[in-house]
Amino acid sequence: MPVTKPHAVLLISCQDQRGIVTAVSSFISVNGGNIIHAEQHTDETLGIFFQRIEFELDGFGIQRDQIAAAFAPTAKRFGMTVEVRFTDVRPRLAIMASKQPHCLYDLLTRWRTGELAADLQCVIDNHPDHAEVCGEFGIPYIHLPITPDTKPQQEAQVIETLEKYDVDFVVLARYMQVLSTELIADYASRIINIHHSFLPAFVGANPYRQAHDRGVKLIGATAHYATADLDEGPIIEQEVARVTHRDDVASLTRKGRDLETIVLARAVRAHLEHRVLPYGHKTVVFS
Amino acid sequence: MPVTKPHAVLLISCQDQRGIVTAVSSFISVNGGNIIHAEQHTDETLGIFFQRIEFELDGFGIQRDQIAAAFAPTAKRFGMTVEVRFTDVRPRLAIMASKQPHCLYDLLTRWRTGELAADLQCVIDNHPDHAEVCGEFGIPYIHLPITPDTKPQQEAQVIETLEKYDVDFVVLARYMQVLSTELIADYASRIINIHHSFLPAFVGANPYRQAHDRGVKLIGATAHYATADLDEGPIIEQEVARVTHRDDVASLTRKGRDLETIVLARAVRAHLEHRVLPYGHKTVVFS
Amino acid sequence: MPVTKPHAVLLISCQDQRGIVTAVSSFISVNGGNIIHAEQHTDETLGIFFQRIEFELDGFGIQRDQIAAAFAPTAKRFGMTVEVRFTDVRPRLAIMASKQPHCLYDLLTRWRTGELAADLQCVIDNHPDHAEVCGEFGIPYIHLPITPDTKPQQEAQVIETLEKYDVDFVVLARYMQVLSTELIADYASRIINIHHSFLPAFVGANPYRQAHDRGVKLIGATAHYATADLDEGPIIEQEVARVTHRDDVASLTRKGRDLETIVLARAVRAHLEHRVLPYGHKTVVFS
Amino acid sequence: MPVTKPHAVLLISCQDQRGIVTAVSSFISVNGGNIIHAEQHTDETLGIFFQRIEFELDGFGIQRDQIAAAFAPTAKRFGMTVEVRFTDVRPRLAIMASKQPHCLYDLLTRWRTGELAADLQCVIDNHPDHAEVCGEFGIPYIHLPITPDTKPQQEAQVIETLEKYDVDFVVLARYMQVLSTELIADYASRIINIHHSFLPAFVGANPYRQAHDRGVKLIGATAHYATADLDEGPIIEQEVARVTHRDDVASLTRKGRDLETIVLARAVRAHLEHRVLPYGHKTVVFS
Repeated sequence: MPVTKPHAVLLISCQDQRGIVTAVSSFISVNGGNIIHAEQHTDETLGIFFQRIEFELDGFGIQRDQIAAAFAPTAKRFGMTVEVRFTDVRPRLAIMASKQPHCLYDLLTRWRTGELAADLQCVIDNHPDHAEVCGEFGIPYIHLPITPDTKPQQEAQVIETLEKYDVDFVVLARYMQVLSTELIADYASRIINIHHSFLPAFVGANPYRQAHDRGVKLIGATAHYATADLDEGPIIEQEVARVTHRDDVASLTRKGRDLETIVLARAVRAHLEHRVLPYGHKTVVFS
Repeated sequence: MPVTKPHAVLLISCQDQRGIVTAVSSFISVNGGNIIHAEQHTDETLGIFFQRIEFELDGFGIQRDQIAAAFAPTAKRFGMTVEVRFTDVRPRLAIMASKQPHCLYDLLTRWRTGELAADLQCVIDNHPDHAEVCGEFGIPYIHLPITPDTKPQQEAQVIETLEKYDVDFVVLARYMQVLSTELIADYASRIINIHHSFLPAFVGANPYRQAHDRGVKLIGATAHYATADLDEGPIIEQEVARVTHRDDVASLTRKGRDLETIVLARAVRAHLEHRVLPYGHKTVVFS
Repeated sequence: MPVTKPHAVLLISCQDQRGIVTAVSSFISVNGGNIIHAEQHTDETLGIFFQRIEFELDGFGIQRDQIAAAFAPTAKRFGMTVEVRFTDVRPRLAIMASKQPHCLYDLLTRWRTGELAADLQCVIDNHPDHAEVCGEFGIPYIHLPITPDTKPQQEAQVIETLEKYDVDFVVLARYMQVLSTELIADYASRIINIHHSFLPAFVGANPYRQAHDRGVKLIGATAHYATADLDEGPIIEQEVARVTHRDDVASLTRKGRDLETIVLARAVRAHLEHRVLPYGHKTVVFS
Repeated sequence: MPVTKPHAVLLISCQDQRGIVTAVSSFISVNGGNIIHAEQHTDETLGIFFQRIEFELDGFGIQRDQIAAAFAPTAKRFGMTVEVRFTDVRPRLAIMASKQPHCLYDLLTRWRTGELAADLQCVIDNHPDHAEVCGEFGIPYIHLPITPDTKPQQEAQVIETLEKYDVDFVVLARYMQVLSTELIADYASRIINIHHSFLPAFVGANPYRQAHDRGVKLIGATAHYATADLDEGPIIEQEVARVTHRDDVASLTRKGRDLETIVLARAVRAHLEHRVLPYGHKTVVFS
């Protein structure tokens, strides 16, 4: 792969008002920056302005660790929430899985082939099934079984493990347990889950059985940030596939696996490219 | 269009058991029939067998009005529910609409260009908006306004109108009123409705607003047979379209119109081609 | 429909260089404008920068007919090609058709229901088939038959007709004749054609027969600006539909009609919303 | 996974004529068989009849190795080409790859998780890149480098390897070399290739570059049986994904990888489920 020079990304949201676009682009050009991408969106119902602006660090007159401070007066003037990110900073990633292998294996493969801009630290599993595969990929594998009785202890172990590996981004690759509210609060907008239905249809357990019972002609999958309300998190990506009366629950499940895999991969990629701005229980996903 | 020789279609369902396929195909070939299409399906969960078998009437040794009787012993032997249909018999169609024109105009156009194998008898509307267009198309237009007070009378008028025009198939082209249970019972599996969401998501009113509030990344439309349980009827066809954070409710509504139009047209076509077998709140739709 | 206040749209392209975004947004904000949408793109292979920026005319300090002149110094500084458009200026539209009705009827319906922001002036047809329908819609219908012998005369009549009606945008709704090079030159990037295949597959005549012969599993349609090279014009929109071995040429043609209709409507809409910037034989289509 | 009782599958093609369906189903029911699935198709242009009929071996009165002989008189009567297959017979599979890992890894994962009903024998690679991964999966890895000078020898080694491992089904997982005509003849309809475009668009090398140059709005992938005419083999499956002006060649290539992976997997699955009947340069793919 070619070496790419690092860029900075500003993720901005604030109340919609005049002059924001000019103020932000001036900040960059006055300091000698070259804007590579700029996208904006206004939620006209709520009156919120969102912007993602990416510019070259090369030639920019402010050191990367000074950018946030230098931008603070502009942010203050417009009442902005701002995140400053860098395209060469790879988040430390943990994947959590249960028995089902497809999303886990797919992410491992994408990570190995360099497609995921993250540093995979560990795989946490409440079942022991994927130890060998993770070993082959050279990834620490932490088996944390859970029972109704040991739930609080297991949840504490999960948090300990994430802290031990200094994880800052978690992907739930068909992890079939509810996370503790503490963990979800600590990792707000930094945990992506895949639900195996077209939300908000078929919330909860066994969505493929529900889909079969209802006789739908399309099945879906939904990637979203994990929140305390199960299956109510901000949706990042969804996709569907056509099915027919011929598809029994097993067939729906098999076809759904390919959907889940691709939808989760797209959502993780959008997050890692700093293209997702969650707000309320919705998201802006820039292209 | 080329003149097509008429075919007969048998739509069969019964408890799954050995020998059905052979018995049915033998009935046809013994009587000199030539099978054009045959499709079967077994719902293995419920143990129900379904078959659609289409054969040429030309050269068949039984008069078309005798086929049902001639097939009765076979049907009895297997406990079959059977419908005998003919590809040159065009059902008498009524379209019911409200203010929204897109599904109505699309069906009128398809009917006019010969794509719909039905004889359009009338358009019933609880608003007066489409009188002129229907006049241009030469279709009787019956305006039956409805208020909370006049609901029972209006429903009676609807039934009277359908009887007057001897209608045997009804399409609800975004008709925004609930039908009377009497009408639904009389026209079981003969009324197709379009719902402007991907059912079972966003049941009820304002699905595009619901979709916007939830922040979904796909919107959908669903065509189904009308049943007493609103939005619970057997689904015939569904489709989705990709949307983004940029789509406000008006934009979702506009994009959804194209979905509704196409989904309804496909469902109507499948019904008119005798390819749909409803059972419970599901359907078999043969290809 | 709600009354929307008019906006101005700048469509800009130039060699990529530093400072463009800031210069353009400053021009607008300095003059008291409020930016509603702004999208940019850089073709990094060719080093070309594209921008679409939409702002409120209400409160803007420059009269609408002075905007181009006021922006000229900025345009000159960066070597920009600029178009200034207004959302309340509706182009004068002509539709050209042949025997096939589906695209024509669909556009007529969208125009009648207010979905197309254009003023339809006339329908030109080399067959006499749609006179009655156009009459019903109150649209002047000009029948200009064509034979190999009368081709030059017919082409002159087409140009005369477009001039007579002062047309500035032409949609070829399955018009099955090649336009004269003169007409194409006069209406560069202002004629949209629909081709009934997924270009560049199946160039030329009978694409559905070609698709059937090749045994493809998807068929497509392509909307593009008309250029002298047939089927080589800049693509605006494409879509596909799944087909199977069961689809004969007639069935592909029928399914294709729905594709053609929707693809053409989307392309026309994108054009009318000033979202398309053609360059070479490609386009930027902003969202 | 539940243990499934083995079925037999008859794949039949012959000139279309009366009585075929009855004759085939009678053969099965007379011998005590229970038909699980039956699908038929007639190519009306060519007058060819195709059928796939699947029935339980359990209770069937003919030994599985006698079925072909017992069916021979029926086959002869109608001039049928017949293949008899069994759902518990897993073909011996070889995968051929080059540098690109995505299709190879995906197939390895599906094989490992039991989704592919084939016995993977070896991976053949003209590059040395995937030795380690294949080692981890416990699959013999044969590195057969190729240069213009060593092409004939390498092709001979490929054939030797396939013979040594007694392979009866080959998947080209982005193998970037042309196979020898001898190999293609030996494995007619038993080699599946993935081409990274929507055939017949963008035949040959660098389809993503071609797609970028043409400015298409959708990219595609095509799985087909390998034939002597490159990219002209019978198409089994195709899929597309939406792209925009923002996608450069690298981005098209990355999005295309997911398409290639899924299209190849679907085609391999259809083949392994005995649902594909190639004829000429087309296929029937039963559902």
